[in-house]
Amino acid sequence: MSASLKAIDGTAELPSLMADLATRARAAARVLSLASPEQKNRALDAMERAIRARASAILAANAEDVAEARASGATSAFIDRLTLTQARIDAMADGIRTVRDIADPVGVVTESWQRPNGMTIERVRVPLGVVAVIFESRPNVAADAGVLCLKSGNAVILRGGSDSFRSCRAIHVCLVQGLREADLPEAAITLVPTRDRAAVGLLLTGLNGGIDVIVPRGGKSLVARVEAEARVPVFAHLEGVNHVYVDHAANLEMAKSIVLNAKMRRPGVCGAAETLLVDRAGAATSLKPLVEMLIDAGCEVRGDDVVQRADSRVKPASDEDWDTEYEDAIIAARIVDGVDEAIAHIHHHGSHHTDAIVTEDAKTAQKFLNEVDSAIVLHNASTQFADGGEFGFGAEIGIATGKFHARGPVGAEQLTSFKYRVHGTGQTRP
Amino acid sequence: MSASLKAIDGTAELPSLMADLATRARAAARVLSLASPEQKNRALDAMERAIRARASAILAANAEDVAEARASGATSAFIDRLTLTQARIDAMADGIRTVRDIADPVGVVTESWQRPNGMTIERVRVPLGVVAVIFESRPNVAADAGVLCLKSGNAVILRGGSDSFRSCRAIHVCLVQGLREADLPEAAITLVPTRDRAAVGLLLTGLNGGIDVIVPRGGKSLVARVEAEARVPVFAHLEGVNHVYVDHAANLEMAKSIVLNAKMRRPGVCGAAETLLVDRAGAATSLKPLVEMLIDAGCEVRGDDVVQRADSRVKPASDEDWDTEYEDAIIAARIVDGVDEAIAHIHHHGSHHTDAIVTEDAKTAQKFLNEVDSAIVLHNASTQFADGGEFGFGAEIGIATGKFHARGPVGAEQLTSFKYRVHGTGQTRP
Repeated sequence: MSASLKAIDGTAELPSLMADLATRARAAARVLSLASPEQKNRALDAMERAIRARASAILAANAEDVAEARASGATSAFIDRLTLTQARIDAMADGIRTVRDIADPVGVVTESWQRPNGMTIERVRVPLGVVAVIFESRPNVAADAGVLCLKSGNAVILRGGSDSFRSCRAIHVCLVQGLREADLPEAAITLVPTRDRAAVGLLLTGLNGGIDVIVPRGGKSLVARVEAEARVPVFAHLEGVNHVYVDHAANLEMAKSIVLNAKMRRPGVCGAAETLLVDRAGAATSLKPLVEMLIDAGCEVRGDDVVQRADSRVKPASDEDWDTEYEDAIIAARIVDGVDEAIAHIHHHGSHHTDAIVTEDAKTAQKFLNEVDSAIVLHNASTQFADGGEFGFGAEIGIATGKFHARGPVGAEQLTSFKYRVHGTGQTRP
Repeated sequence: MSASLKAIDGTAELPSLMADLATRARAAARVLSLASPEQKNRALDAMERAIRARASAILAANAEDVAEARASGATSAFIDRLTLTQARIDAMADGIRTVRDIADPVGVVTESWQRPNGMTIERVRVPLGVVAVIFESRPNVAADAGVLCLKSGNAVILRGGSDSFRSCRAIHVCLVQGLREADLPEAAITLVPTRDRAAVGLLLTGLNGGIDVIVPRGGKSLVARVEAEARVPVFAHLEGVNHVYVDHAANLEMAKSIVLNAKMRRPGVCGAAETLLVDRAGAATSLKPLVEMLIDAGCEVRGDDVVQRADSRVKPASDEDWDTEYEDAIIAARIVDGVDEAIAHIHHHGSHHTDAIVTEDAKTAQKFLNEVDSAIVLHNASTQFADGGEFGFGAEIGIATGKFHARGPVGAEQLTSFKYRVHGTGQTRP
């Protein structure tokens, strides 16, 4: 570890350091909330240029992080998430340009109406304020989250996993350079300048009103800790225990294509399907082809009794399987008695993330879409569309599974609040 | 205290009682979320009838509460809030009809767009789930909050001040009768059936996922406790330290009429003005008439040096006055150097509730409306319009001063979340 890293690790001054960060972020947020779209885009352009120009410095910093992680025995999956390549750096820079090109949400009048007394009321989007993003080993989140917060007029405090500290710092240098070139305050995007894990606990307290919302980006244990400890609002992004229900009135070819895509396109993303529900009334024709297809594609199928009989390679499902987010090429599969039992199963076992029905029956589809209480419900489409880009949001900071403020893909618009502007001509209230 | 009240007070079974309430409320919320507008309106009609029919029973229960409060030495202001009259009962019943006539927010598609791959995405309003309303001595809140939650498809758990327990129970009987007549689950509107104050602490824990949002309705100490202890989202309704800024370009007659109304129409409501800011550039003509008018109307004025010189009856303002919500016929007044200092003062001392500017200069007004970071900002209109009814929302459950989810008047629409319905024709993600 370099001297400069050691110097700020584990000092007794951490609480005052963090309080100071929050104060400066709050002041920056006020400036940002009034910045023009052009000024913010100038910063984003400069950030993109800086990321591309400093790619070798970022890769060098990342190599140090990776070496340290390897030496400490990190898993290969961990190393993969931590490692940056030229391609990943290019993707980061491209992502900044994508955010630059999103419509600026701030200042947009979403509703406007006149009252009988002649007053006009407008509802207009304003930034939330200061967003804290707590993430794990993927250093690219520093850029992705930083620029999305900037676009939406929010200041952001970034806290990456301590293993990715050098990488995040190298990326942060580029973001700050962009702010500087656009005459925006550097505290608009702050990286917590210490690897001390106590900093996370301090962020979760809200730093005495200094933080308006916390966005956890990472695995279950991080999200669970944030949910349990946070004293400020959290954009909860819980697991995606997502279902595909194949109704008896499904087109079998469509069902096969959707199920395969929903599970196997990328088994590790949060929009991947984890459970297949097959309508008993259609099982005679649909079950065997679906199960065979999955297993032939390299997916482990864990089934109930009926599903086990469909193919000898099916493993028995335990009670736990119905509640599990595998994030892997594994799917739980069971028979249900029609759409009602499918809805009941999802109500009981789902995580309110993303669920799909395959059917040619419009009425059944409508029932499913209405009654399944998830952020995203799809008819005849793959659950893997659960993604801000696929929704047309340009970019996202995560998929919210709570119902408060944001739900589903959290894009620039969901990172705003609103206020009411009232235009009068001297009205007083009787 | 009657035997039936005592029987459930302070028992060791409170945690399991509360957990049970939450479980039943959750189940009721699911039914409510799918109830048609007509079914909910049938319940509201029946509730209105029941309130009118049982007025004497409600008054009798209230008389017991009032007698007990008097005996325990409650203040006259407290007794006033607690006391129901035939007029207040009529207002409650009228309020139910108003809510019945609001547009049903549930199921409304607020946005709809098509993706390049042919999928259609709809954003549709859905209820939040289970709302807990914690209020103090005004028993009419039980009806007002109960029916607004019902209209928006949410189950509600009501917890009134223990002093109003009998009154709330009598009102609750009417609400339950309405639910029953419309075949809706009785647990859709639950009154915590005990005066044990520990029930509040249990509600604030969120009852293990049983409560989605908490709405505190009451004074500062209640709101502060809820904010400090709640483990679930809160519709924060903090105090209203509201300002009227009279610019040098104001029409003096309009300024007088707005300032008088903003402070004196009802000095105790949260939309009342607490601080008057007068532009130095216009003070020579505006200050004396404004101050005289207020004092002549019975308002105490606490001013800075300049304001004190305007009228010998002005009292000196202390530092504290700038941060005080008087809720009374008192106003703090000072001179500021134009709109910039007015904005800075509000930024420093305001509570992000409601602030107004009086000016004939459109550019100055625009600056004020953009830069003052409050839920409601008004140009040439009284701050007393900070009210859901005045906004055209029909009814409200409070004025939210936070930026998360709801802001400003919290009406039926703000008590909803949304979900995305995706309509495909077999799309899979590349």
